[in-house]
Amino acid sequence: MSYCVDKSSIFSFVLETGISEDAVSSKRYLSHLKGMVANETALQEMIKKEDTLVYEFYEMGVPEHPGDLAFGTSICYPGTIDGEYFMTKGHFHTILETAEVYLCIKGCGLMLMENPEGDVSYEELTPGKMVYVPKRYAHRSVNTGKEPLVQFFVFRADAGHDYGSIETKGFRKLVVEKDGAYAIVDNPKWEK
Amino acid sequence: MSYCVDKSSIFSFVLETGISEDAVSSKRYLSHLKGMVANETALQEMIKKEDTLVYEFYEMGVPEHPGDLAFGTSICYPGTIDGEYFMTKGHFHTILETAEVYLCIKGCGLMLMENPEGDVSYEELTPGKMVYVPKRYAHRSVNTGKEPLVQFFVFRADAGHDYGSIETKGFRKLVVEKDGAYAIVDNPKWEK
Repeated sequence: MSYCVDKSSIFSFVLETGISEDAVSSKRYLSHLKGMVANETALQEMIKKEDTLVYEFYEMGVPEHPGDLAFGTSICYPGTIDGEYFMTKGHFHTILETAEVYLCIKGCGLMLMENPEGDVSYEELTPGKMVYVPKRYAHRSVNTGKEPLVQFFVFRADAGHDYGSIETKGFRKLVVEKDGAYAIVDNPKWEK
Repeated sequence: MSYCVDKSSIFSFVLETGISEDAVSSKRYLSHLKGMVANETALQEMIKKEDTLVYEFYEMGVPEHPGDLAFGTSICYPGTIDGEYFMTKGHFHTILETAEVYLCIKGCGLMLMENPEGDVSYEELTPGKMVYVPKRYAHRSVNTGKEPLVQFFVFRADAGHDYGSIETKGFRKLVVEKDGAYAIVDNPKWEK
């Protein structure tokens, strides 16, 4: 959805679900995660049965002007792929030196981050938690809970999305279920 | 509160109240609204009895870098000054060509906006409503309800705050209670 950024605008979301009736969401299914998960065979098997919705997001399209802000909500659904939690693809900003702010409204999970030099960090998400994703860090939302993970996000309108190596290798770390809790483990695709 | 923007950071808010235990809020009382309301005599009388808290906000201090984002919550309490609703002072951005995004989490009210040329607009706030404040527009939150108006906001870290004529004349329009509903009327201080 795009709108005139030179006039004030209003958008409605259901806070509990992140869903808006003012726009159409972009949807990402299991098949969009190909290349990004640890067990590609398990992913293929799941897709054969049903290409489940993993996450969706509403991003208000704005001109790529550094004085404007892009914003919206993202909803990552609960689930696992051979123990690896459902997650967003994640992205770097094309203008690497731009930050992003997330506010968790519902659900629980992790914001997983890494910079091009390989520094990794993560923050736990629960309702009311606000994460500052620093400049230069790719970021991915991971749902480690049983209900949808709903977040509100804002970034500079000209920041852009760059998937870099994410679409072929994923992130350096995986978030997996272990004894009923989450664990952060090395992504074997990043091993030398 | 300030923090290192080169590392990921997390801040906790109570979604229902906007209150954070991670930081100290900035507080604005009736006495901070001197010069900005229609009935200054009524304001003085109220202050004499009690200098009530009108609004408070948590703004996470960040270096003024165009790639960073400033963010936080604002809480405007319910009340009136001779029929004029409690409100924030409002501000222009010093870098006029920068926008701001607000998400209403609780309560109800208005976002009142005006540009230097005198164009005025407003948007109604209820939970789940997201307002895009365009570049060049001063903006003020007005609580027209009976409970606190809680909002989350994000703007470019170097945008800055400029009060211009707001601190001496207020906005071009006032939001007043009329027959149990809100009405937008001309601010007599802006009459020629």
